[in-house]
Amino acid sequence: MSLTKVNEDLVREREKCTFDVKELTHYFDGGEEITLNRRKVEEIILSYKELKDEVPEDYLSHKERYENAIRKAILVKDIRKRHNLDTPLMPEKYEVTYVNTILKGIIKDISPVYLHDTMFLVTIWGQMSPEQQAEWMPKAKDLKAIGTYAQTELGHGTFLRGLETTATYDPETEEFVLNTPTLTAYKWWPGGLGHTVNHCIVVAQLYTQGKYRGLQTFIVQIRDLETHMPLPGIHVGEIGPKFNFQTANNGFLGFKNFRIPRKNMLMRNAQVLKDGTYVKSKNDKLTYGTLVIGRVNIINDVAINLSAAAVIAVRYSAVRHQSQLKPNQPEPQILDYVTQQHKIFISIATGHAFRIVGRWLWNTMMQVLQNISEGKMEQLPELHAISCCMKAVCSQDSASSIEQCRLACGGHGFMKSSNLPLLYGLTTASITYEGENTVLMLQTARFLLKTWMQILEGDTALTPTVLYLLNFAKPTDYRWENTPQGLIKGFQAVAAGKIKTAYDSVVKYVNAGNSQQDAWNLASVQLVAASEAHCRAVLCEIFSNEIQRASSTLSPNLSKVLQQLVELYLVYWALEKRGDILLYSTISKDDIAALNKRYEELLALIRPNAVGLVDGFDLRDEVLNSTLGAHDGRVYERLFEEALKSPLNAEPVNSSFHKYTKPFMETAKL
Amino acid sequence: MSLTKVNEDLVREREKCTFDVKELTHYFDGGEEITLNRRKVEEIILSYKELKDEVPEDYLSHKERYENAIRKAILVKDIRKRHNLDTPLMPEKYEVTYVNTILKGIIKDISPVYLHDTMFLVTIWGQMSPEQQAEWMPKAKDLKAIGTYAQTELGHGTFLRGLETTATYDPETEEFVLNTPTLTAYKWWPGGLGHTVNHCIVVAQLYTQGKYRGLQTFIVQIRDLETHMPLPGIHVGEIGPKFNFQTANNGFLGFKNFRIPRKNMLMRNAQVLKDGTYVKSKNDKLTYGTLVIGRVNIINDVAINLSAAAVIAVRYSAVRHQSQLKPNQPEPQILDYVTQQHKIFISIATGHAFRIVGRWLWNTMMQVLQNISEGKMEQLPELHAISCCMKAVCSQDSASSIEQCRLACGGHGFMKSSNLPLLYGLTTASITYEGENTVLMLQTARFLLKTWMQILEGDTALTPTVLYLLNFAKPTDYRWENTPQGLIKGFQAVAAGKIKTAYDSVVKYVNAGNSQQDAWNLASVQLVAASEAHCRAVLCEIFSNEIQRASSTLSPNLSKVLQQLVELYLVYWALEKRGDILLYSTISKDDIAALNKRYEELLALIRPNAVGLVDGFDLRDEVLNSTLGAHDGRVYERLFEEALKSPLNAEPVNSSFHKYTKPFMETAKL
Repeated sequence: MSLTKVNEDLVREREKCTFDVKELTHYFDGGEEITLNRRKVEEIILSYKELKDEVPEDYLSHKERYENAIRKAILVKDIRKRHNLDTPLMPEKYEVTYVNTILKGIIKDISPVYLHDTMFLVTIWGQMSPEQQAEWMPKAKDLKAIGTYAQTELGHGTFLRGLETTATYDPETEEFVLNTPTLTAYKWWPGGLGHTVNHCIVVAQLYTQGKYRGLQTFIVQIRDLETHMPLPGIHVGEIGPKFNFQTANNGFLGFKNFRIPRKNMLMRNAQVLKDGTYVKSKNDKLTYGTLVIGRVNIINDVAINLSAAAVIAVRYSAVRHQSQLKPNQPEPQILDYVTQQHKIFISIATGHAFRIVGRWLWNTMMQVLQNISEGKMEQLPELHAISCCMKAVCSQDSASSIEQCRLACGGHGFMKSSNLPLLYGLTTASITYEGENTVLMLQTARFLLKTWMQILEGDTALTPTVLYLLNFAKPTDYRWENTPQGLIKGFQAVAAGKIKTAYDSVVKYVNAGNSQQDAWNLASVQLVAASEAHCRAVLCEIFSNEIQRASSTLSPNLSKVLQQLVELYLVYWALEKRGDILLYSTISKDDIAALNKRYEELLALIRPNAVGLVDGFDLRDEVLNSTLGAHDGRVYERLFEEALKSPLNAEPVNSSFHKYTKPFMETAKL
Repeated sequence: MSLTKVNEDLVREREKCTFDVKELTHYFDGGEEITLNRRKVEEIILSYKELKDEVPEDYLSHKERYENAIRKAILVKDIRKRHNLDTPLMPEKYEVTYVNTILKGIIKDISPVYLHDTMFLVTIWGQMSPEQQAEWMPKAKDLKAIGTYAQTELGHGTFLRGLETTATYDPETEEFVLNTPTLTAYKWWPGGLGHTVNHCIVVAQLYTQGKYRGLQTFIVQIRDLETHMPLPGIHVGEIGPKFNFQTANNGFLGFKNFRIPRKNMLMRNAQVLKDGTYVKSKNDKLTYGTLVIGRVNIINDVAINLSAAAVIAVRYSAVRHQSQLKPNQPEPQILDYVTQQHKIFISIATGHAFRIVGRWLWNTMMQVLQNISEGKMEQLPELHAISCCMKAVCSQDSASSIEQCRLACGGHGFMKSSNLPLLYGLTTASITYEGENTVLMLQTARFLLKTWMQILEGDTALTPTVLYLLNFAKPTDYRWENTPQGLIKGFQAVAAGKIKTAYDSVVKYVNAGNSQQDAWNLASVQLVAASEAHCRAVLCEIFSNEIQRASSTLSPNLSKVLQQLVELYLVYWALEKRGDILLYSTISKDDIAALNKRYEELLALIRPNAVGLVDGFDLRDEVLNSTLGAHDGRVYERLFEEALKSPLNAEPVNSSFHKYTKPFMETAKL
């Protein structure tokens, strides 16, 4: 069998695709130019043979994996420098973050300098004064200062006011003295902190002139630049193995009377003067901007992970044959089983949805950040609210959809070499980091309840993402319709209904004698549900609108298929949420039966284009890293080739037989 | 801080528990005697210090982990032998499979001899003739024959008729000749096959006298008993890393004209005579028995895994403090957040439910197997149907509930040292093995549709688990009631409604001109949904009945708490499935609002007993293996102690700095 031959089932699938796959790729990337640029960068970086592993990562020890990851991460930096492949930190237009995607493919996990490339640089960009930026940005770009972002502590995550690390200003030496007063005050989690970085952005409680001044951010050198030895007063190390992120080198950090110069406080907003006078920030909401960037990036990240899982599951399902549909016929492709289509087609639709909504949110954010920099803050609460729930819903849905793809690949999906376990691990992590999802949902709920009160008070000047609520605030003549637009209205009706229910529930608990805070807690399950419903309504509307808007520039064939994807997405979620729709809209049981039928039709409509749709994501084999998902469909050959790489397979008999098993067998003979 | 001091929050929680935790443990185990015996066995085995790892498994290379797992697995065998701790292969009463649970705690993953201890022994017990058993059982018990069960192939899982391995009888030498004709015919997955076993049960397509005779089972020696070298004609090795199961040593196996004696065919049912004459089995359903055992064992397995996750999440939530409920008050235990209770209390209830239903199913199965051995087969179809959907629902629910527990522990739940990632990995695997869940659900659906036809034909002689369908086959005066019994009726109404819908859908597709098989496929999403609904109705009823039945022998305090758990379970699922209940019962919107309120009340009722309820599972620290879940609640100390064990932390500067990072930093200076 030739190594380059493409599996015949995949050849047939590609022949019957009804649209131009290239066109889809350009649309998905955001334009042909971006596609070409992405491919060029991929081509250059991946041409370096040293980036390939001889022994797959999963056979190595924890320490070896870290060392190999550093080797590859530095090599990629070197290649990018040599070929001038710098990407802008904050591109004005939302582009594929392709270097990160390639890097994930190369490291086969998180790079130990990932937080350097993201949070460290973004914090310098967003929170340093111009003079500080001039000093630190070049150092950071040249990796002279390798940094991370240290906020979370062993005992403190979400609740920033609870952080225990202190920075006390000493005017005599014009220094801050950093301390870790307890075990729970240790910084815990920052990526690269263990053994990789020599600098650290540290969030600490500031004290000057004997007074508490709230949280401030500092840049702290923690290791010698020449020897890399931890400086005196620094206790640093890694926190150990995780579900994934094995090479992220997440670390802990403790300070003992550790001194840094005054100028190392990040002074774009608040300042400490030489004598210790504290100058408050003019607007303490200014740092919200960087948090929003982090959340919006996650949406793109998980969309790519989910797309990769969809590619793997669909191609494998086209290659795998199983059971019999009809007597005396050959085993069909498992892609022909409707239960299989039900499991994996939604991941194709969701991959598109999140990518498109992520792009919309990025563009919205850039415009709001521009306004903020001009002092106009009014859009910030809405941006904060929508980015919170979007991050939560997109990370949660992506994780469960990836896991569904993995399970749809049966036993082979359980193999690390399928890459599905890694994709799941990376994605589920984002449920927790950059704001735990439940906490974020409750942030959005706060905004939604405020909006609802506004409506009750007769104020109709609502911000764009909640404008739809006005249609449902009073009894309307709204009637259910089984059309895409009707479904979107249905999701809005559900969101409005759930916001009202949650609001009423808080009021009821307050009226029953609970404090505002206790009432909020008692109703919190419903508050989270309201946020989720709101987010889904917005997601569905934007996905649908954006595809509609693009259809004038796309060829009719592609446009038709994308509209099928939108409808699949809407119908899938209408059926999933049928309980809520029954409760909060005028849908009938017959409508639901009709939706069920339509869903089965849509699966059949998408079936012939399934492989084309995932080919359109244009994810290279080196990014997919999957025995099941490669473009040529050589599933079984690759599985076998990977197995043969196991160091255990290098010896016919493992030493443990003679050492442990045989002696036991021999005692049995006695 | 003293090493033995128990966290004060946990002390307080235990003080306020309203029932006797010991009594719960005895109930959970199935009797005080079993508890005492289990504890004795645990005490003996765990007293061996050599079973503790100096370096945690997760830091080791793949090969080192395997070798360490063999060391520990053999040592445990040795200890059991020395202390005569043999457990019956098929206990008549359903007992805690505690040795397996301890072993999982010791190996911290699956033992390489797990399949020897289970499927290999069970197949000898169930499928060998008495003479064969007399030869093989002692060898297997003494580990002279270390074995596994090889059925699945690289290209073939569910569909047994698709297996490609052949066994051709040669009457001249009175041998079978085994062959692996293609790459996809390689045996793939059997645990221990890689480097551990020297024997193998092999399922292959039998040919004698030039005729195809269907699948048969053989016992095959694959390695030399002295040298452990693979025998000529055998190609064997391991399949590589997986999501978990790193130490299970899953392997591949290929045959090239490999000859085994005639007597190595398992001949309890079918036989091949010296001249090659094939004597058919009297009843080809006889081997179903062993499959049912495997599925019922999984229910117990996942119930224990889920219970462990519940212990970890509840104890951690009692120790962890976060945020503020009220201004100027200390950070509350996260167990006080209703969203947290919502995430984890269901896992306590489900742990109990699955354990109790698993026990009921075991006892039912033992009685049916007894009847089968007396030639009475009529109960087999129902046992098959109920064990299929129970395995599917219990494995699926346990996996998602464990994952919810992990996520409820935030970042620390992502640490391997929490043990939640391992518990999830082990549990989600059982969704796929011993019959993939969707395939199993469709098996049950076949039984349910047959039953529905029976009802339509006026036949009311139904088997016990489907008897409830009679109440819903015709229009009834059934009215919704918001009581536990009313909810159970509601789940039954949903199941009946979904079975009817699925049935009608198949009929509709047939009437539209589709073949029976195509119609089945087209309706399969609804068929799976019908099976799930049926399973939930049975689960809920049995859980509720069994707790009711036990209440006469339990103290009133414990009985009350267990009834709260049952109600929580029922209300949780009623709310989760509110869409179906709205569609198929007479529930009103007000009923649903009342259920929401009741749910919030139940969370509050269970809150004070949460720690007591998980203490009652009586899972030792050595079984939990969790920094977050230990009995003393020293969460932060343990997390830090574990981190310090990292080999990376043994050196202040990792060699990769000088090798890779520093040279890059220096080129930047140029």
